[in-house]
Amino acid sequence: MSDHEISKAVVKRLPRYYRYLGDLMNAKVERISSNELSDLMNVTASQIRQDLNNFGGFGQQGYGYNVRYLYNEIGKILGLDKTYAMIIVGGGHLGQAIANYVKFEKRGFSIKGIFDINPELNGKLVRGIPIRMTDEMPGFLKENEIQIAALTLPKTGAEMVVPVLVENGVKAIWNFAHTDLHVPDDVVVENVHLSESLMQLSYDLNHRKV
Amino acid sequence: MSDHEISKAVVKRLPRYYRYLGDLMNAKVERISSNELSDLMNVTASQIRQDLNNFGGFGQQGYGYNVRYLYNEIGKILGLDKTYAMIIVGGGHLGQAIANYVKFEKRGFSIKGIFDINPELNGKLVRGIPIRMTDEMPGFLKENEIQIAALTLPKTGAEMVVPVLVENGVKAIWNFAHTDLHVPDDVVVENVHLSESLMQLSYDLNHRKV
Repeated sequence: MSDHEISKAVVKRLPRYYRYLGDLMNAKVERISSNELSDLMNVTASQIRQDLNNFGGFGQQGYGYNVRYLYNEIGKILGLDKTYAMIIVGGGHLGQAIANYVKFEKRGFSIKGIFDINPELNGKLVRGIPIRMTDEMPGFLKENEIQIAALTLPKTGAEMVVPVLVENGVKAIWNFAHTDLHVPDDVVVENVHLSESLMQLSYDLNHRKV
Repeated sequence: MSDHEISKAVVKRLPRYYRYLGDLMNAKVERISSNELSDLMNVTASQIRQDLNNFGGFGQQGYGYNVRYLYNEIGKILGLDKTYAMIIVGGGHLGQAIANYVKFEKRGFSIKGIFDINPELNGKLVRGIPIRMTDEMPGFLKENEIQIAALTLPKTGAEMVVPVLVENGVKAIWNFAHTDLHVPDDVVVENVHLSESLMQLSYDLNHRKV
């Protein structure tokens, strides 16, 4: 199956489909119609049919979608059929929250190291993973093939570590720092800007229906 | 100034303008042209002019935008000229990371309480704020006017606390739990689904230019 024609907008919606299909699988549901999925997900059935048509026309009229098949296909598109080696740069609360989140590990994102500049954190274990000092990071990256780095440290620190990560082969950055990182074309960045999300909430709160 | 005509797409971009304008203000920049801002933000100058035209045509040809004025206007649209009382439900690492993030406090989001069900956390201070037990939450909400609740607890817990929050006047939910919450029409929800963000990163990693 080729996926080159899947639009960015559809890709953005895939993780949500994946979550609902996973819940359905856990609830032992084998087939679901676009109308049922529409009720569940609060998306129009025609949107669902259009989106899922990208994975071949296997949702037949009056028959529905095969939940497990669709779940697996979407997983493959998202790259969840592989495993990834990941490090966390920034061993504060946010870094530790991510390191403790076992679901990521189950999905194939294996946390190999946590780094911080605070000597008080040196050697502290988070879910069995020791926090190392940031100056050990280049050596660590040379010895371990790491694809993904989560940046849970302040802006200035994040900007400083990016070149080190890139030089040492990291190809994907999950950026929680409040800055837009500059990376080469073959490195991808996904931003989680918490303060911008809180501003959206504040906007919505001030513009909600009363 | 009325803002009823600002589109959802523009609103989504406002926090990023706000961040760049804040950085410019800190760097003592008083005026900036759409071309300069375009280089800085990596957005076309015409997009910037279109977006900022929503706030009146005060960017004059050859003269540029007044940074502070624009920063303040966007802040008002986002509701950042007000203060909000907020609680955090879920006192684990993620909840503590948010409680420790002083920038939110500076922007007017004042954290009044942290709640958890784990008795070991009872009374623990996070940036001076004691963690309370979740069964004290209804009483706390009745005594304190709280507008925003951040949910940093697992899915099932999140679904259980939402009715309690809504009954007690909370109007905005910042949801980190991996579930779509069901709330009345006058309550707004902003989701931060970390695992979905990580899946986007994994997709991008597998579909990047090599």
